[in-house]
Amino acid sequence: MQNNANDILNPFHSFKLDPQSPLPLYFQLYESLSKRIHAGEIPNGFKLPSESRLAERLGVSRITIKRAFNELADSGLVSRKRGKGTLVTLNTALVVKGGVLEMTSNIAAIRHRTKAKLYNRSRDDIPESAFNALKLPMSASIETTTHALLLNENAVTMSVTYAPSELIKNFSDEDIERESLITLMQEKGIRVSKADQVLTAIAATDYHAEVFSIPTGSPLMEIQCLMFDQTGTPCQFVKSYFLPEFYRYEMTLT
Amino acid sequence: MQNNANDILNPFHSFKLDPQSPLPLYFQLYESLSKRIHAGEIPNGFKLPSESRLAERLGVSRITIKRAFNELADSGLVSRKRGKGTLVTLNTALVVKGGVLEMTSNIAAIRHRTKAKLYNRSRDDIPESAFNALKLPMSASIETTTHALLLNENAVTMSVTYAPSELIKNFSDEDIERESLITLMQEKGIRVSKADQVLTAIAATDYHAEVFSIPTGSPLMEIQCLMFDQTGTPCQFVKSYFLPEFYRYEMTLT
Repeated sequence: MQNNANDILNPFHSFKLDPQSPLPLYFQLYESLSKRIHAGEIPNGFKLPSESRLAERLGVSRITIKRAFNELADSGLVSRKRGKGTLVTLNTALVVKGGVLEMTSNIAAIRHRTKAKLYNRSRDDIPESAFNALKLPMSASIETTTHALLLNENAVTMSVTYAPSELIKNFSDEDIERESLITLMQEKGIRVSKADQVLTAIAATDYHAEVFSIPTGSPLMEIQCLMFDQTGTPCQFVKSYFLPEFYRYEMTLT
Repeated sequence: MQNNANDILNPFHSFKLDPQSPLPLYFQLYESLSKRIHAGEIPNGFKLPSESRLAERLGVSRITIKRAFNELADSGLVSRKRGKGTLVTLNTALVVKGGVLEMTSNIAAIRHRTKAKLYNRSRDDIPESAFNALKLPMSASIETTTHALLLNENAVTMSVTYAPSELIKNFSDEDIERESLITLMQEKGIRVSKADQVLTAIAATDYHAEVFSIPTGSPLMEIQCLMFDQTGTPCQFVKSYFLPEFYRYEMTLT
């Protein structure tokens, strides 16, 4: 099936942005495209029109389109490549039953066999994607922690966690090195009851390269995990990176 | 937890290889270690003793140990790195319920949006790991097929499939480009009822680099999938590679 910019213009035919809305134009566009991609109305592999073409079509600035496309890319819904345009990514989605307990006991088992090292805690420079994932307004306070798990003094995984500051402000650095945030939250009555996970492969950045003592660009397994508490409220958004030689994700589908 | 070669020697204390057995010595060692790793008796992250040390201990040649370790590495149970020794890998295992139907419909959906290109069919040079996965003796006939799925003329995934020759000998090259092997087998009454999957990240080989038009060493997502038919017999062993920009594996754990 060949797709081109003309095909995709149809979904935009009746498409209107509302300049009177309190929602920014880029966000209206992002939300609408995100819904259509999730609903399958804009299929996987589809090529979106160019920024300039869509800007002209919708009568908004190219900056607005660029920002909406960047948000889509941050959410993993599209892939942007110089010279190849913006393509809707191929997702394979599985609903996994009975998995949260297994996930939390796996995390506990891995922590038991490794030594945690806290690199950083901060409430500054939180990316917009973390606010979006946690469904919090930009005015909310989010804390990020970065830690690695070491096996024989070598990092085998590192995680960047975002959580509402309120939920983790009372945990000391020692708490965070001692137990997973899931366990610490559980002790405060917050139980993870659902998790959305996305698995993919990435090239190590300079920062990953330093943490793992590997060359920049080496393959790493990335797992993004958004955890929800028993009330359905997002309580943690985690991006974890694994050295593939030491980590495999096994599943039995029945 | 620090592990060293001394610790692991304990599990080998009462360990004996049987030179009278019809099973090769390396296979006896491989099977025993594999069982102990799966059972958690030899924990994730554990460092196995060196080949020479274990050879001395068990009174066998170093070649025997090397072969057993290579089999363990092929099965993904250990990681071997020059200068770092042989470490049991960190696995995270999930039992996924209700996933086979979703997997097969996802594969069908991806094929529907892409164009298949068959690269190769062969019954020669089948790796030992394929016989092991399919639980077939080395004297059995296995056929391998290599194909890519193209989106806008670019490969976004490629798969190397191993199956008993008997099951696929009647499928033409056109059949294989038209439909997935799962669908083709289904038409012959073979229904996939269970699948064991392992997800990891790898560095593109020269061959991957050529197929995907990417630099050697770029990250790829690898999914190994062993499929079983309704009688519990392995019917396909597939290694699939995905360009991560175009593929994300999403799961909802509940």
